[in-house]
Amino acid sequence: MIYADNAATTKLDIHAFNTMKRYLLDEYGNASQPYFFARKPKKALAEARATIAECINALPEEIYFTSGGTESDNWAIKGSAFVDTVKRTTITSAFEHHAILNSCKAIERLGFPVTYIWPTSEGVITPDALTQIITNQTRLVSIMFANNEIGTIQPIKELCDTAHAHGALFHTDAVQAVGHVKIDVQELGIDMLSASAHKFNGPKGIGFLYIRRGTRIIPYADGGAQENGYRAGTENIASIVGMAIALQNNCTHLEENVAYVQSMERLFLKELQEAQIPFIRNGGKNTLPGLLSLSFSGASGEAILHRMDLMGISISTGSACNSANTEISHVLKAIRLEEELAKGTVRISLGRNNTEEDVESIVGALTKILR
Amino acid sequence: MIYADNAATTKLDIHAFNTMKRYLLDEYGNASQPYFFARKPKKALAEARATIAECINALPEEIYFTSGGTESDNWAIKGSAFVDTVKRTTITSAFEHHAILNSCKAIERLGFPVTYIWPTSEGVITPDALTQIITNQTRLVSIMFANNEIGTIQPIKELCDTAHAHGALFHTDAVQAVGHVKIDVQELGIDMLSASAHKFNGPKGIGFLYIRRGTRIIPYADGGAQENGYRAGTENIASIVGMAIALQNNCTHLEENVAYVQSMERLFLKELQEAQIPFIRNGGKNTLPGLLSLSFSGASGEAILHRMDLMGISISTGSACNSANTEISHVLKAIRLEEELAKGTVRISLGRNNTEEDVESIVGALTKILR
Repeated sequence: MIYADNAATTKLDIHAFNTMKRYLLDEYGNASQPYFFARKPKKALAEARATIAECINALPEEIYFTSGGTESDNWAIKGSAFVDTVKRTTITSAFEHHAILNSCKAIERLGFPVTYIWPTSEGVITPDALTQIITNQTRLVSIMFANNEIGTIQPIKELCDTAHAHGALFHTDAVQAVGHVKIDVQELGIDMLSASAHKFNGPKGIGFLYIRRGTRIIPYADGGAQENGYRAGTENIASIVGMAIALQNNCTHLEENVAYVQSMERLFLKELQEAQIPFIRNGGKNTLPGLLSLSFSGASGEAILHRMDLMGISISTGSACNSANTEISHVLKAIRLEEELAKGTVRISLGRNNTEEDVESIVGALTKILR
Repeated sequence: MIYADNAATTKLDIHAFNTMKRYLLDEYGNASQPYFFARKPKKALAEARATIAECINALPEEIYFTSGGTESDNWAIKGSAFVDTVKRTTITSAFEHHAILNSCKAIERLGFPVTYIWPTSEGVITPDALTQIITNQTRLVSIMFANNEIGTIQPIKELCDTAHAHGALFHTDAVQAVGHVKIDVQELGIDMLSASAHKFNGPKGIGFLYIRRGTRIIPYADGGAQENGYRAGTENIASIVGMAIALQNNCTHLEENVAYVQSMERLFLKELQEAQIPFIRNGGKNTLPGLLSLSFSGASGEAILHRMDLMGISISTGSACNSANTEISHVLKAIRLEEELAKGTVRISLGRNNTEEDVESIVGALTKILR
C-alpha cells in the first residue's frame, strides 16, 4: 500500500507512541489530583506545553490543549466574537477549511457580520485584498496559514500587520502547516493559531490553540479548572505528550524533512512531465512541501482516486472532511478553476515516509489511468 | 502503590489498549476518506458506535462521539438552550459536576434562566422537589445519574417522568455511572446522557453524548460532516474503539464487577468499624459501588489525603476537577454537612482492580492517621 494522502492524516511517530504507551498503561493518574501518583502526568503536561510553545516560539502559558484543529478553529472564531461589543466584524477567506467557514456561519446566525476575501487564481490572499475590506469595525481577521487542498502558503506576516494596523486581532488556521513549515508566532505577530496533532505525525483527537497573552477570548468548555479555566476536562496526557514528541521531532528535523519531501515532489513533477501527461498544478509558486493539487483536463478526479485505490495507492480529491460531498470543492471554486479542470483534480500529498519508489509507482499509475 | 481514586480516573483496560494500538500504529487512515485504507477505521467506527449503543440500549445513530464528559455536558446544556425560544428555563441540581454548573452559568449570562434543586441531606434529588419548581417554561431538566463526590444514585426514572409530564427534556450527566451500574435509556426514558471513557477503564480524551432520535439540539463543533454534521473533527478512531471495548467489557461483567466491588466496600466498612474509628458515610443508602465518602469529625480531609499519599495510597478529598480549590466542596455544602465534618471528608473509590489487601492497607493507614 502506498499512502499519499498525508494532508488528510499522517502516520503516528513511533517515539510518540512509545511514550504515549507509558501514560496510557502505567502513569494513568488524573493530572489534576494533588497526590504522588499524579505527579508524573502533571510534569509531563507541563513539559509538553513547554515543548510545543518552543516549537512555535510562544510561551507555555499561551498554549491551550484542545481535541484537535476543528475545536481550535471553533474556539478562535466563536470565543472571540462575544468579547467585543463594538468591533463586531470578522474577516476570513472564502477558501478556509469548513471548521472556519462553518464557525463563521454560526456567528453570522447570531448577528455577527463576517466578510469574505477571495483568493487570487494562484490561491493567494493578498494584503491588498484585506486592506480593501478591513475597517475599524473589524475585530478579527482569520486567514489559514496554508490551504489544505491546494497547499498555497499565505503571506501571513503582511496579513497580520494589516490586521494590526487596523486594530484587529489575527488568527490563523495553521492545521496544515504546523510541523511542516517554520512558524514563529513572535516574528509573524500572530495572536491565535490552531493546530492538530494528527497532521504532523501525532495522534488523532488532540490539538492546541495558541492564544497570545492578553488576548480576550471566552472559555471554550466550562467545567473544571483545567487549562487555566479556559478549556475544562480531564487532561488527555497520553495524547498531549504524543503530540509534543511528534511536533518536536518534526521541528528538529524540519529542514531535512522539507528538503526530502521537496525532492520527492520535484521527482514526481519531472516523471509526470516525462510521461507526457498534460496537467495543471494549482496553488501557485509557494506551496506546502509535498502537497500537489493537479488538474487533468477531461478527466474525473473521483475516477482517478478510485482507480488509484484499486492499485493500492491512497490519494484524495480534496478535504477528507467533505469527502461525502462529490461537488466541486469550494477551494477550487474560490480560485475560479474552470469546471472541466476542477472535475479532473486530485490532491497527492507526499510525506517523509514516502520513497522514490512510491513516487514512481504513483506516476506510473496516473500514466496508466490517464493515457 | 494502592490506587483508590477510581472515581477520578481508572486504569485502562488492556484489551482496549491492544486494539487501540492497531488503530494508532497501522490502521491510521482518515475514516472520512473514500479509499480502501480508510475502510477498516470506518468499519471500526461504526462497530464502536453500535457496541456503545447496545450497552445503554440506544440506537447507533443516537451516539455522538465527543472529547469527554465535559464536552458532552457543555453540548447538552448549551446546545439545547438555543433551540427553543418559548420554553427557556433549565432546571439542574445544586450539586452537579462543574461541567454542568459552569455551562449553566454560561447560558444564564446569555439570558437563559436556570433554576437549581437542592438535594436532601442524603444526597437525593427527589421527584417532589422537581415537581415543586418545574413549570411549562422548563425546556430541560439535567440531573446527574450519580453524584461524583458522594456517590448517591438518583431516582432517574421518576425525575425523567416528571420532566416529561411537564413537556421538558431530560438530560443526565452519567459520567460517574456508565459502566458501573445498569443504564437502559429506553426503560428510563432519558433524552440525553453524557459519558466519559476514562471513568470506565477507557482512554482519556474521549466520551459520548447520547441524543435520543428527534431531540432538537444545535451542533457542538462546526466544520466537516463527521458525526452526522453535529460534531465536526477527524474521528479519533483509536480512542473511540478503546472506549467501546472498555465499556463492553464493563457491561458484560457488570454484575460480577458490582458484586466484587461491593464486597470490597463491605469489607472496608467492617474493618473501619472494627478499628473503632468513628465516621459518617455520606450519600445515603443507594450509592455507586465502591464509592465511599467518609467524614471524620475533627480531622482534616486534606491532611488525611497527604498522609495517605506518603504511605503510597492515592485517595481524594473530592472532585479532581477542582483539586486546586481547598474550600469545602459545593457537594458537601449542598447536602448541608456540618462544616467540621465537611473539613474532615475524604473520598475513597474502590475499583475492580482493588484487592482485599488494598482494603486492609487503606483501613490500616486511616487507623494510623486518625487514632
